[in-house]
Amino acid sequence: MNILENIIDLLQLMGQSLRIPTSFVVIDFIGTLAFAISGIRLASAKQFDWFGAYIVGMATAIGGGTLRDLMLGVSPFWMTNPIYLIWGAIALFSVIMFGRILIRQKNTWFIFDTIGLALFNVVGIEKTLNLGFPFWTAIIMGSITGAAGGVIRDVFINEEPLIFRKDIYALACIAGGIIYIMCHQAGLSAEINAVLSGMMVIAIRILAVKYHWRLPVLKGEEQQ
Amino acid sequence: MNILENIIDLLQLMGQSLRIPTSFVVIDFIGTLAFAISGIRLASAKQFDWFGAYIVGMATAIGGGTLRDLMLGVSPFWMTNPIYLIWGAIALFSVIMFGRILIRQKNTWFIFDTIGLALFNVVGIEKTLNLGFPFWTAIIMGSITGAAGGVIRDVFINEEPLIFRKDIYALACIAGGIIYIMCHQAGLSAEINAVLSGMMVIAIRILAVKYHWRLPVLKGEEQQ
Amino acid sequence: MNILENIIDLLQLMGQSLRIPTSFVVIDFIGTLAFAISGIRLASAKQFDWFGAYIVGMATAIGGGTLRDLMLGVSPFWMTNPIYLIWGAIALFSVIMFGRILIRQKNTWFIFDTIGLALFNVVGIEKTLNLGFPFWTAIIMGSITGAAGGVIRDVFINEEPLIFRKDIYALACIAGGIIYIMCHQAGLSAEINAVLSGMMVIAIRILAVKYHWRLPVLKGEEQQ
Repeated sequence: MNILENIIDLLQLMGQSLRIPTSFVVIDFIGTLAFAISGIRLASAKQFDWFGAYIVGMATAIGGGTLRDLMLGVSPFWMTNPIYLIWGAIALFSVIMFGRILIRQKNTWFIFDTIGLALFNVVGIEKTLNLGFPFWTAIIMGSITGAAGGVIRDVFINEEPLIFRKDIYALACIAGGIIYIMCHQAGLSAEINAVLSGMMVIAIRILAVKYHWRLPVLKGEEQQ
Repeated sequence: MNILENIIDLLQLMGQSLRIPTSFVVIDFIGTLAFAISGIRLASAKQFDWFGAYIVGMATAIGGGTLRDLMLGVSPFWMTNPIYLIWGAIALFSVIMFGRILIRQKNTWFIFDTIGLALFNVVGIEKTLNLGFPFWTAIIMGSITGAAGGVIRDVFINEEPLIFRKDIYALACIAGGIIYIMCHQAGLSAEINAVLSGMMVIAIRILAVKYHWRLPVLKGEEQQ
Repeated sequence: MNILENIIDLLQLMGQSLRIPTSFVVIDFIGTLAFAISGIRLASAKQFDWFGAYIVGMATAIGGGTLRDLMLGVSPFWMTNPIYLIWGAIALFSVIMFGRILIRQKNTWFIFDTIGLALFNVVGIEKTLNLGFPFWTAIIMGSITGAAGGVIRDVFINEEPLIFRKDIYALACIAGGIIYIMCHQAGLSAEINAVLSGMMVIAIRILAVKYHWRLPVLKGEEQQ
C-alpha cells in the first residue's frame, strides 16, 4: 500500500494548491478509488477487456452522482472536472499492474468503500439541500449518490443488483441522512452534520458486516 | 380487500383537503399500488430482501414518470411530493403482511394495473403537451410514463423486459394517446379527452388479455 | 440493396428541400438504419415481438444521443424531429419483409454501422463544444453518442454489453475525438475537423476488424 500513501501525499499537495480542504480531496479520492476497484474487480470476473473494466469502474464510482445530478437538473459533476476520470484510470492501471494482490486486500477496500460511501452520501445530501429541495429528497439523493453506482455496475455485468439481495448498504446511507437532517434542523454547522452523518454510515456498515445484519428476504412467490 | 377500501376512504378525505379531485387521487393511488405490487411480487420471486423489493416496487411505479420528467427537463414528480414513497411502503408492508393471499388476487391487480396504466398515460400526455412539445412526443411520453417502469423493473430483476416479448401493453397506451390527441385537436375538453383515452387503454388491455392478442414474434436470426 | 438506393435518392430530395446538406441527411439515415437493424437483429434472436424489436432498435439508434442530451441538459434530439422514429419503422419493416436476406448482408451493415458511428461521434462532439463544455467532455460525449446505444440494447436483451468484452468500438470514437479536438484547436474549419475525425473512426474500425485488434482481457479474479 506504499503506492497509495504516495498518491495520498500528492493529493494533499493538490488540495492545498486548489484551496479545497485536503481531507475532502483525500476522502473523495479514497472513495472513488474503492468504488472504481469494486467495479473493475467484478468486470474482470466477467472477462471484460480493459476498456470494459474502465467503464464499469467509472460507472460504479460516478454513476450514482450522475443520476443524482440528472434528477437535480444540473450538469453531472464530472463533466466540468476531469479528476474523476483520472482516478478511474489510476484504479484500472493499479489492477492491471498488481492484479490479485491488490484485489485481495479485502479489508482495506472495505474500509475505503465505507469511507467513500459516507462521503458520497453527505455530498449528495448537501447538494440537494443547497438546490432547495425538501429534506426527504435530500436523504434519497444521498442514498442514490452512494448506492446507485453499484446498481448500474451490476446491470452492466448482467447480475441482479447486490444491494437488493444482501448487505445493509443503502439503509446505512438513509440512517446517515436522517442524522444529517436532524443535526441540520437543530442548527448545527455543516461540518458537524457531515461528520456525525458519516460516522453513522460507517458505524452501521461495520456493525452490519461484523454481525451479519440482514434484512428479511421477502416471501410471497416462488421462483417460477 | 376491506383494508384497501378503508385506504380508499382515507384518500377521498385527503383529496378533499388538498382540493385535488378525489377521483384523481384514488385512481393515482390504485395505479401506483398495482405497479408497486407487480415489482414487489417479481422481486420476491428473486429472493430480494425488503429493501430490494421496495426499490424494485418504487422503480416500477415511478420509474416511467421519472424517465419522462428527465426527458422533459423538469424535476421528477416524486421529488416534491412524498406521497408516492409512502404508497410504495404501503404496497411493501401489504405484501409482507398478507403475502401470497394478496399477490394471488390476480384479477384485482390486473384491473388496478390497467386503470393505473390508463391514468399514467393521460398524465404523461397532458404534461408533455403543457410543456409545448409536439403531439407525437406527447403520445410517446404517455407510453413511457405507463410502460417504462416495467422495463426498469425487469432490468433490475435481470430478466428480458416482459413487454418486449408478450402482451399488448405499450400499444394500448399508444392507441389511447392517439384518441387523446384526436379529441384534443377536435377541441374537446381535457376531461373528456382523458376519459375517452383512458377507456381506450382499458378496453384494449382487457380485450388483449381476454382474446390472447399478441403481436407477431420477429423472425430473422436464430438464437446463437 | 436496390430499395436502399431508392430510399437514399428520396433522402437527397428531402435534404435539398430542407436545405440541410444532403450528405449529412444521407449519412444520418444510413447510420440510424444500421444501428436500428443491429438492435432489431439481436431482438429477433431473443424472440421479441415486433414492438419489442422496434423499441430495441430505436434504443440502439437514438439511445446514445438521448443519454448525451440528458447529460448536456437539453431536450433529446428526437423529441422535436420525428424522422428518427420513422427511420426506425423503416428498419423494422425491412427486417419483417426481407428477414434473413437483409440481416445477412453483414459487410454492408458493418460499413453502414461504421459510417454511422463516425457521424454520431462528430455530432456529439460538436453539440457539446457548442454548449461550452470542455474539450475532454466533448470527446466523452462523442463516444457516448456513438457507443451508449449499443450498451442500452444489450441491457434490454439481457446480455453483457458487447463493447465491454470485444471489439475496438468506443476507442475508435475516442481516437476520432482526439483528432477532432486537435484540428479544432489548430483552427481548421468544422467541416475539415469532421471529415478527418470521421476518417479516423472508420479507419480504426476497419483495421481493428481486419486484423482482429483486441484490448487485453483484464485478469484479476476468477469467475466465482
